[in-house]
Amino acid sequence: MAPTKAPDSSRRSDRSRRAIHDAALALVGEVGYRRTTIEGIAARAGVGKQTIYRWWPSKAAVLMEAFLDLAGRAAEEAGPQSGDTAQGIPDTGDLTADLKLVLRATVDELNDPALEIPTRALTAEGIVDAQLGAEFVSKLLEPQLALYVTRLRAAQEAGHLRADADPRIALELLIGPLMHRWLLRTLPLTHAYADAIVDYTLGGLTPRP
Amino acid sequence: MAPTKAPDSSRRSDRSRRAIHDAALALVGEVGYRRTTIEGIAARAGVGKQTIYRWWPSKAAVLMEAFLDLAGRAAEEAGPQSGDTAQGIPDTGDLTADLKLVLRATVDELNDPALEIPTRALTAEGIVDAQLGAEFVSKLLEPQLALYVTRLRAAQEAGHLRADADPRIALELLIGPLMHRWLLRTLPLTHAYADAIVDYTLGGLTPRP
Repeated sequence: MAPTKAPDSSRRSDRSRRAIHDAALALVGEVGYRRTTIEGIAARAGVGKQTIYRWWPSKAAVLMEAFLDLAGRAAEEAGPQSGDTAQGIPDTGDLTADLKLVLRATVDELNDPALEIPTRALTAEGIVDAQLGAEFVSKLLEPQLALYVTRLRAAQEAGHLRADADPRIALELLIGPLMHRWLLRTLPLTHAYADAIVDYTLGGLTPRP
Repeated sequence: MAPTKAPDSSRRSDRSRRAIHDAALALVGEVGYRRTTIEGIAARAGVGKQTIYRWWPSKAAVLMEAFLDLAGRAAEEAGPQSGDTAQGIPDTGDLTADLKLVLRATVDELNDPALEIPTRALTAEGIVDAQLGAEFVSKLLEPQLALYVTRLRAAQEAGHLRADADPRIALELLIGPLMHRWLLRTLPLTHAYADAIVDYTLGGLTPRP
């Protein structure tokens, strides 16, 4: 998305870009999506609004990129053993362990205020604004969900997942309860809960012979 | 919540109350929770704003009651065979069939624009406003979830559900995916999806011997 630029201006551009991302996330967390404006982001980032207009076509585009940047940074900080999905879901051959690792990491991310507050603001707006919601889902959510599909298909090939289960539906049994509890704050979102979801989903609720 | 009133004013009160409910739901669907005001509801319902202030302590209280009223009416229209949870979840002895009935009815409700639009507006606001969210959950959501706990405990007693499964977590495997798909509009919310959730959740995803 960055325009071609001379090498000596590239570091300054990266700094401005990061400042704009941070300003956009802070603002959307404070005043909500609707009241966040390009002008407000520019003022907070200490750049001219023309800088933003030159790089992004819309407020939504700034925010999408800011979220991708933030998620990438969170994953880097958490390190390669964290269940970071940026490199795909690990495949150690133990489906239960791999899914618990990833769901626990997701719990940690959702409980991190730096991610939580802007994510809530954007999700809430997507719930009432179908167009923004669709963009949010296709750019931010579906790439994550695709990683589950890949891991679940591998499990099917290894005989660890029922051959007749649709991975695209199966992943919703893992992600849906987590997001539901987080969004509606019904009960605390913990590692124990992540583990229970994986155990219940894989093992099923009816008694096994 | 209704004050003591003379019998001859009671029918008029009921009409006003219903008009206020309808106005509140319509308004919150159109302009969102924050921009809905007591004055706006009064104007739309054709009553004085003092009437609303006399009956309800807050905008949130009007809306909570309006949702309960709307859900009650929807359940009445759908009839007793609809999987209406107002009378509890049916217990025919067939857990799979009973859960499919209820989840299909929930799909129908969520796809009904009269319920969908105001429910989205209130849910979105609860996601960013923790206090409103908590009120929404305790008054509207938890009473519904309690019906699942009751049905799932009965299934445990009948030996149809694993004895070591926590019904409060188990129900989230049913409700979470449904709400996730509806809120984020990832894929169509259909009866087939409701059935798949029940089958996957009860049977589990790992191969059975």
